[in-house]
Amino acid sequence: MTSLSLIEAAAGRLKGHARVTPLLSSPFLSEIAGRRVLVKPECLQHTGSFKFRGAWSAVSAMDPDLRRHGVIAFSSGNHAQGVALAARAHGIPAVIIMPQDAPAVKIDNTRALGAEVVLYDRAGGEDRDAIGRQYAETRSLTLIKPFDDAQVIAGQGTVGLEIAKQAAKQGIETAEVLVCCGGGGLTSGVALALEAHAPRMRVRPVEPEGFDDVARSLAAGDIVSNAAPSGSLCDAIVTPEPGQMTFPLLSRLCGPGLAVSDDEALQAMALAFSRLRIVLEPGGAVALAAALFHSDKIKGETVIAVATGGNVDAALFQEALSRYA
Amino acid sequence: MTSLSLIEAAAGRLKGHARVTPLLSSPFLSEIAGRRVLVKPECLQHTGSFKFRGAWSAVSAMDPDLRRHGVIAFSSGNHAQGVALAARAHGIPAVIIMPQDAPAVKIDNTRALGAEVVLYDRAGGEDRDAIGRQYAETRSLTLIKPFDDAQVIAGQGTVGLEIAKQAAKQGIETAEVLVCCGGGGLTSGVALALEAHAPRMRVRPVEPEGFDDVARSLAAGDIVSNAAPSGSLCDAIVTPEPGQMTFPLLSRLCGPGLAVSDDEALQAMALAFSRLRIVLEPGGAVALAAALFHSDKIKGETVIAVATGGNVDAALFQEALSRYA
Repeated sequence: MTSLSLIEAAAGRLKGHARVTPLLSSPFLSEIAGRRVLVKPECLQHTGSFKFRGAWSAVSAMDPDLRRHGVIAFSSGNHAQGVALAARAHGIPAVIIMPQDAPAVKIDNTRALGAEVVLYDRAGGEDRDAIGRQYAETRSLTLIKPFDDAQVIAGQGTVGLEIAKQAAKQGIETAEVLVCCGGGGLTSGVALALEAHAPRMRVRPVEPEGFDDVARSLAAGDIVSNAAPSGSLCDAIVTPEPGQMTFPLLSRLCGPGLAVSDDEALQAMALAFSRLRIVLEPGGAVALAAALFHSDKIKGETVIAVATGGNVDAALFQEALSRYA
Repeated sequence: MTSLSLIEAAAGRLKGHARVTPLLSSPFLSEIAGRRVLVKPECLQHTGSFKFRGAWSAVSAMDPDLRRHGVIAFSSGNHAQGVALAARAHGIPAVIIMPQDAPAVKIDNTRALGAEVVLYDRAGGEDRDAIGRQYAETRSLTLIKPFDDAQVIAGQGTVGLEIAKQAAKQGIETAEVLVCCGGGGLTSGVALALEAHAPRMRVRPVEPEGFDDVARSLAAGDIVSNAAPSGSLCDAIVTPEPGQMTFPLLSRLCGPGLAVSDDEALQAMALAFSRLRIVLEPGGAVALAAALFHSDKIKGETVIAVATGGNVDAALFQEALSRYA
């Protein structure tokens, strides 16, 4: 089970390897939201998303004798790149099982980071778990789960340690902290870190409309699933349901979830372009979108949005600019 | 005259007001360049460019009795926004004289930051100095020059202090440091800071082809001017000639200048988008373009490129992506 001490130990292992991302702001964004908006741009993290933190945390925590055989991961993209780079930096092999309809840029980048990419047909119903199991057993690879893993959650939680420290430097102790949420690894890790280091901050998961399994699970008090497996522009954060390990943490620590439309995510991408000069992917922009366009559901003078990733195909980014910049 | 102690004093005044920008990297960019590439993304600075540092330095150093009357500046954009925000934060008026053909986004943003914008016809030969003089005299405004001012150079020099510290943390003491160069305020400030704090780093100005007045002045050993006043996509860094105050510093401290084409600047913008997830304007991308596409003219294992600004119209950014992403 992830605890504060596991997060602090992960922060020690990540030091000098993961990037400390700054806390950005723009008077133009605060004006739209009607309160101070701060943005934690994890798109500036190595491999373009926070996933590198969890991957590094997990790989660096492994027993070296086990680690040398290599690791395996299932991912539509950002977790894949994080695991690939963390594995390469540790000098070990990485096999990544990816859906063949994942964004081309993510498949290419994962390969370029030295990983062996195995594609499967998500729509055609191929059993990725069976494929992965076969690879793992044959080569003694260790599975790095995308969120339901204590060391992965601990790594993502280092985002929370940084937020607490950086906000305190600006004199901010009270805030709602919005986190783009898939399986809940980042959200629960940040919530654990802030529970200890900034207890007056409240973490809230943000999801795409129609794929708000975490929000509905929190409301129901039990894990519920999404109706469809995919179909959002925010593909990076679409998961069937919260994790067995993350849900109890989310349930204990987080405020109600928020959901935004694909159009709101694109609009947030355009504003992040013009006002913060950062590149966000749709799934990485939902927290900022909620901060800007759902301010009636948010409390207090300050909202902090974690912008989780920036691996977006150029064509989609151009569409966001054409429509909203 | 700007000195190291003036830069260090400016750093003290900027603390908590200017952003400490990180030092970014991507294995993909290093592969293109054939050496390690580090990027200092001043596009993430307040108002989207390093200009905020110099503006804050100058405004904060003023005598309060003089300051309360307000400040005036001439600028095609980034200096304007920097001065506007620094003035607003100090609670004083700012008048900005801008060419009417400056990018719309820069004019709009300067107004939105509370400045009074006065447009003049650059192509039609209106005398901006006469216009500015009249405003300054009538209202007792103090002129904040864009580069030929000791406190402005000192503020820009804080970029150099950060580079020295951040590179040392990564064990890097030797590097060529490429700086997008207009009048030379940033370039000379960075060179002064590095002379003291990282003496094995060599600063080199980078300019647009056809507007390489600094490179040619360095080669000639005396100030020479550009043939044309404008006509580059890299409008933000087109100046007629190096400054009276900056040229002696550039001449004493910098290596030979480099020049890149508009197309190379656009290509660097596309790579900064996909590999660093940051937004650069053409003038802010020339140093990165030189690092990537003129590596035969650069020495050593590490090159550090200062990416100076990210205030770019969406249409031009989309063009860069259409052509090169």
